[in-house]
Amino acid sequence: MFDGILARGAVPATVADDAWVRAMLDTEAALADAGAAAGVIPASSAAAIAAACADLDPDPAELGRAAAAHATPVVPLVAAIRAALPEAVRPHVHAGATSQDVLDTATMLVARRAVAAISSDVDGAADAAAELARRHRDTPMIGRTLLQQALPTTFGLTAAGWLTGLDAAAAALAGFAPTAQLGGPVGTLAGLPPAALADFADRLGLHAPELPWHTERSRIGLLAGTLGVTAGALGKPARDVTLLAQNEVGEVAEGAPGGSSAMPHKQNPVAAVSALAAAAQAPGLVATLLAGAVQEHQRGAGGWQAEWWPLRELLVAVGSAAAALDACLSGLVVRPDVMRANLDRAGWQAEPGAVDPVGNAGHFVDLALARHTSRRTDG
Amino acid sequence: MFDGILARGAVPATVADDAWVRAMLDTEAALADAGAAAGVIPASSAAAIAAACADLDPDPAELGRAAAAHATPVVPLVAAIRAALPEAVRPHVHAGATSQDVLDTATMLVARRAVAAISSDVDGAADAAAELARRHRDTPMIGRTLLQQALPTTFGLTAAGWLTGLDAAAAALAGFAPTAQLGGPVGTLAGLPPAALADFADRLGLHAPELPWHTERSRIGLLAGTLGVTAGALGKPARDVTLLAQNEVGEVAEGAPGGSSAMPHKQNPVAAVSALAAAAQAPGLVATLLAGAVQEHQRGAGGWQAEWWPLRELLVAVGSAAAALDACLSGLVVRPDVMRANLDRAGWQAEPGAVDPVGNAGHFVDLALARHTSRRTDG
Amino acid sequence: MFDGILARGAVPATVADDAWVRAMLDTEAALADAGAAAGVIPASSAAAIAAACADLDPDPAELGRAAAAHATPVVPLVAAIRAALPEAVRPHVHAGATSQDVLDTATMLVARRAVAAISSDVDGAADAAAELARRHRDTPMIGRTLLQQALPTTFGLTAAGWLTGLDAAAAALAGFAPTAQLGGPVGTLAGLPPAALADFADRLGLHAPELPWHTERSRIGLLAGTLGVTAGALGKPARDVTLLAQNEVGEVAEGAPGGSSAMPHKQNPVAAVSALAAAAQAPGLVATLLAGAVQEHQRGAGGWQAEWWPLRELLVAVGSAAAALDACLSGLVVRPDVMRANLDRAGWQAEPGAVDPVGNAGHFVDLALARHTSRRTDG
Amino acid sequence: MFDGILARGAVPATVADDAWVRAMLDTEAALADAGAAAGVIPASSAAAIAAACADLDPDPAELGRAAAAHATPVVPLVAAIRAALPEAVRPHVHAGATSQDVLDTATMLVARRAVAAISSDVDGAADAAAELARRHRDTPMIGRTLLQQALPTTFGLTAAGWLTGLDAAAAALAGFAPTAQLGGPVGTLAGLPPAALADFADRLGLHAPELPWHTERSRIGLLAGTLGVTAGALGKPARDVTLLAQNEVGEVAEGAPGGSSAMPHKQNPVAAVSALAAAAQAPGLVATLLAGAVQEHQRGAGGWQAEWWPLRELLVAVGSAAAALDACLSGLVVRPDVMRANLDRAGWQAEPGAVDPVGNAGHFVDLALARHTSRRTDG
Repeated sequence: MFDGILARGAVPATVADDAWVRAMLDTEAALADAGAAAGVIPASSAAAIAAACADLDPDPAELGRAAAAHATPVVPLVAAIRAALPEAVRPHVHAGATSQDVLDTATMLVARRAVAAISSDVDGAADAAAELARRHRDTPMIGRTLLQQALPTTFGLTAAGWLTGLDAAAAALAGFAPTAQLGGPVGTLAGLPPAALADFADRLGLHAPELPWHTERSRIGLLAGTLGVTAGALGKPARDVTLLAQNEVGEVAEGAPGGSSAMPHKQNPVAAVSALAAAAQAPGLVATLLAGAVQEHQRGAGGWQAEWWPLRELLVAVGSAAAALDACLSGLVVRPDVMRANLDRAGWQAEPGAVDPVGNAGHFVDLALARHTSRRTDG
Repeated sequence: MFDGILARGAVPATVADDAWVRAMLDTEAALADAGAAAGVIPASSAAAIAAACADLDPDPAELGRAAAAHATPVVPLVAAIRAALPEAVRPHVHAGATSQDVLDTATMLVARRAVAAISSDVDGAADAAAELARRHRDTPMIGRTLLQQALPTTFGLTAAGWLTGLDAAAAALAGFAPTAQLGGPVGTLAGLPPAALADFADRLGLHAPELPWHTERSRIGLLAGTLGVTAGALGKPARDVTLLAQNEVGEVAEGAPGGSSAMPHKQNPVAAVSALAAAAQAPGLVATLLAGAVQEHQRGAGGWQAEWWPLRELLVAVGSAAAALDACLSGLVVRPDVMRANLDRAGWQAEPGAVDPVGNAGHFVDLALARHTSRRTDG
Repeated sequence: MFDGILARGAVPATVADDAWVRAMLDTEAALADAGAAAGVIPASSAAAIAAACADLDPDPAELGRAAAAHATPVVPLVAAIRAALPEAVRPHVHAGATSQDVLDTATMLVARRAVAAISSDVDGAADAAAELARRHRDTPMIGRTLLQQALPTTFGLTAAGWLTGLDAAAAALAGFAPTAQLGGPVGTLAGLPPAALADFADRLGLHAPELPWHTERSRIGLLAGTLGVTAGALGKPARDVTLLAQNEVGEVAEGAPGGSSAMPHKQNPVAAVSALAAAAQAPGLVATLLAGAVQEHQRGAGGWQAEWWPLRELLVAVGSAAAALDACLSGLVVRPDVMRANLDRAGWQAEPGAVDPVGNAGHFVDLALARHTSRRTDG
Repeated sequence: MFDGILARGAVPATVADDAWVRAMLDTEAALADAGAAAGVIPASSAAAIAAACADLDPDPAELGRAAAAHATPVVPLVAAIRAALPEAVRPHVHAGATSQDVLDTATMLVARRAVAAISSDVDGAADAAAELARRHRDTPMIGRTLLQQALPTTFGLTAAGWLTGLDAAAAALAGFAPTAQLGGPVGTLAGLPPAALADFADRLGLHAPELPWHTERSRIGLLAGTLGVTAGALGKPARDVTLLAQNEVGEVAEGAPGGSSAMPHKQNPVAAVSALAAAAQAPGLVATLLAGAVQEHQRGAGGWQAEWWPLRELLVAVGSAAAALDACLSGLVVRPDVMRANLDRAGWQAEPGAVDPVGNAGHFVDLALARHTSRRTDG
């Protein structure tokens, strides 16, 4: 019910239960193929397993209920796969793996799609910011510090500042290297040759780790930190839009502002507000993910299981903020005349011979645009 | 899919979308009745509105989609109620209220049920801890500090310590005073007499605030803090169970331990692990809720909307931890013989004439049990 | 160096190292007295210990260095007390206690003073808000929601909203019950009669717990939650002041605004900004304290030690926000004429016969003032 | 007083008030030099300013007090520099800059030194882990999952897992690019040519940003995330040491365990406990820093000021955890005989012809060591 505000965009579908189940089934299939390639299970078994995994469509809710008894949904999933196969093939399902192998790998497959969706909307918002910066490269406005009018700048530089943050976030997201997990019950990859790890990863288009990382969670923490930074980069322009859209300021307005249940005359910057609300979810969720990293021995007792929800929520929240900011900036109405009037009213007077306070604003806009174009062209 | 581990127990149903919509409809009905009692709308309109609210069953997903345009699901909900009524009655729907009145009040109705569900499972876990304390009042075991064997204590006192924490959490939860919200667009309760606020609250069985609290969020923060403390009280015994259940310690075991996808011989303390994972969600969510309290002017631009998810998740997580710990402690297998053997092996020797290290353990158990009995009898 | 902004007010002195050491020495003295009263050590020893504790003034930095070897500063402190006493008395120092007894009890003594200092500044801010509400009970202003002008309200009601939050925080702080800790190495209070616990607490003016609470940390969590709520109550008016003080709004100004290193003409609302920055510290620190509650066995291995810093920082930060907000509100310059002009400019027109949007604003102001007066008179 | 446990190592000196003041003075000197190079101020003024900055040693506490009136310590610092110079030179001090330029740049200088100190201790801990992995490459032990004995692995692979996490953290820390800040009051770099930005950065050995980043805080967020990941990488081995050092497990012990104030026989793993307590500070502080990123307009009103403390505390906490873990692992006593005995007692029996559960453990150790050697040799 709150999803229109806090779960906008394409991420929710990528992290939905059925997407996660599909990722786990793809993982089991890849595992069987890798096992066959390594000569550990017959090729015919691998083919049967892959076919069964392609066909199966188990009810996530039922898996969830059965998961309670094992603290992992992989146990009932493996049982479901086995049940769909001839008896002789059943022992070849999940051979060499532990449930965390499957869930961690599936999480990475899910995260890859979710991060791609986030990146797409961050790019959209960045493109919109770039367009604003380009169009208003030389539009003067009063700069504001500590929420007080300070000295003149341009709206172009303001938008270029947004752009720089969004580009930094996009670059950080591009550094996410989704990585397969395969180590077996205690991370020794017993029963498989070392090369099976890279082969397994390859089949899923994932990076191969040097070692299984059951309780080495830097990958999760780094992704969390990146998503947290992205949330900040999305929240900053949204905050500015809400401030610049105040009636008393009036320098921008959303293209499709929202009404109110009681005051039809209002023009609420709902996209910006939604972006702010979604971005505000991130810091606490990042903290939960970072705190979960201190896990016990070969596989953790609580910290690992504690990752599932906050990672999912974090992906959704950041994706929602990105979608909302994209909508906000893409339709943003800019009012250079109001900017000029506010500037005049600010009473700032260039003294004769004084330095132009707008300084290198245009130069910085050009730099930001050039870097953005370069990033978007390479991407 | 992860709900069997992180969303156990009765809370999820109380905070589901349809429960929230139902609470909003009940709120609109109570608002109409209060308006009629105040002479602001006709009694016939109130009756018609109440009947419509009772009958309506809107699709939360559709409300959610429509909510995106307004940053609140109340706008489409009010539209749905109006659409179900004759034209003459429509202006009487939602009269005097703003969307936050409806959503905050509904949130309190939802939270009341969720907290009741949590309290019930906390009580269950506390009863189980009490039974362990009673039964093992004088069962000696080695006490452990900084994860090192220290001096003898009793398992009864260990369980009494769990009990004390759970009772403290239950007492804090009992202090939650769900409170109605009604102030209209800017919190002045324009168009309604002051008495309408208390009347409205009464009709929903909620406390009446002295003032509307649109941007005075101490109620949310205090509830969050209480839930955070409850999570800690639930996590502590779960941590101890995982430690005492280690094979090398072996002093307790879960009654229904979980298997593994790869190692059928394992006896994983899955209920305790699930409780730990759920409890670990709380601190970050509490932080998000506390950070949201700094809201702007008469109604906030982001901070309010940012509360909805973490409050829901926090209720679910704490409820899940409570249900899991109840299951864990209710079925806990205690092994006094192993405790005795570990104690003997610890090499602790009472020197002749020395103080008995078990000291007042029994006395403290009795105190904790007496207080628990008193709380449970009063409740 | 940042203390002028983030560590204002009276709290820093109450939580300084020397205050903590003094609290630990007072605790050891009270322990000795309680031990003598219980007949466990000679009265003469207790007197000597109390005298030594009164005289000692150990260097906290040196204690800190020595603490590294024990993960607690109590070990070197006890050694220092013993070194100041005749050999026969030395075994009577710290008799029956463990280091956590001393540190937890000292923490409560420190927290009591810090909370009193916070409460005093919260009261000061609340009194200032009350005065603003009283003086501007009927001063009209435009209400703002989602950072957009909405409908008329009064500045009195705005200030009364601040007041209500501050009073709620003060009431929550008043509920803090600083509680002694005494249980000995594994919490059994071996070697002391049960009554010694209450006697020990009494001597320090602290509450007596029913049981030692070495790993039952609800007291810390509840205090943390209360401080987190207080931070929100302090941040909310500060946020409003920064918004109302924007040049484009101009409805309030700080009495002693700050200049800028580069723009002497600026009137920065530095007290409000400082309050916001300090209040922003709270949510993360509360999360750390709540997360620390899941401690192992009889005394924890990490979680307990992790409490010391964030509790201290949280007390300082909330105290700093309170001192800053007190300064901000006490000197606040209110401009009814600008409020009127903004209201007129907002274009809101009362239609003939329409409801007065200011509604019950005055009534609510009166209620908030009455409750505040009652709280302050009782206190 | 708690610094021996929570503020160990070399970081505290790098982030102390006097170090920060020194960094600010160095920044003002570099600014003057860059201004002279750009022809904006006379070379003689730059020389005089640099000399004054080199000589000055202002009292940080006094700066802190004066900072309260401006919400920044730079205003009184600039005043102090000016006071030390002839009147004609005074206007050339701080020319073109705003206080945030100086504080952000100084923060980066401070962070660079602190991160170097952290990295050094992370490297120390990693080297120790590598040595353990090398020495115990083939030392069998029972692997444990969900705190239950599972299947055999080696202590070498356990240590290699620690190593991998520490190496990942070190690599992330090496990616920190401390970056100068220079934009003037509203970020337009008015009064200076664009090239002055790079020149200024060069003089301090910092990276030059493309744009001023007064309210584009991705640099702070990325550093925070990296430090959060580092904390997790440090906490994980510490958690394992506390668990493996339990008397009932007994597979490792700290080389210099700590005593107790009441139980001299105890062998507390104090370094590991200290590392855990310090690492536990990180998630909440990271959340505070990430939340601060949503800053207003050209320079923020609260969010920026809110960064100073948590960044300092985060650097100290992670540094302390690194120093403690280095001490813990460097002196770790490993007991292969106990590992063997526990393994035998675990009752795990290799069935004839079954897969060796230790699998590729040795291979993975070799990989981890090779990567570590390569990183340390390049570094």
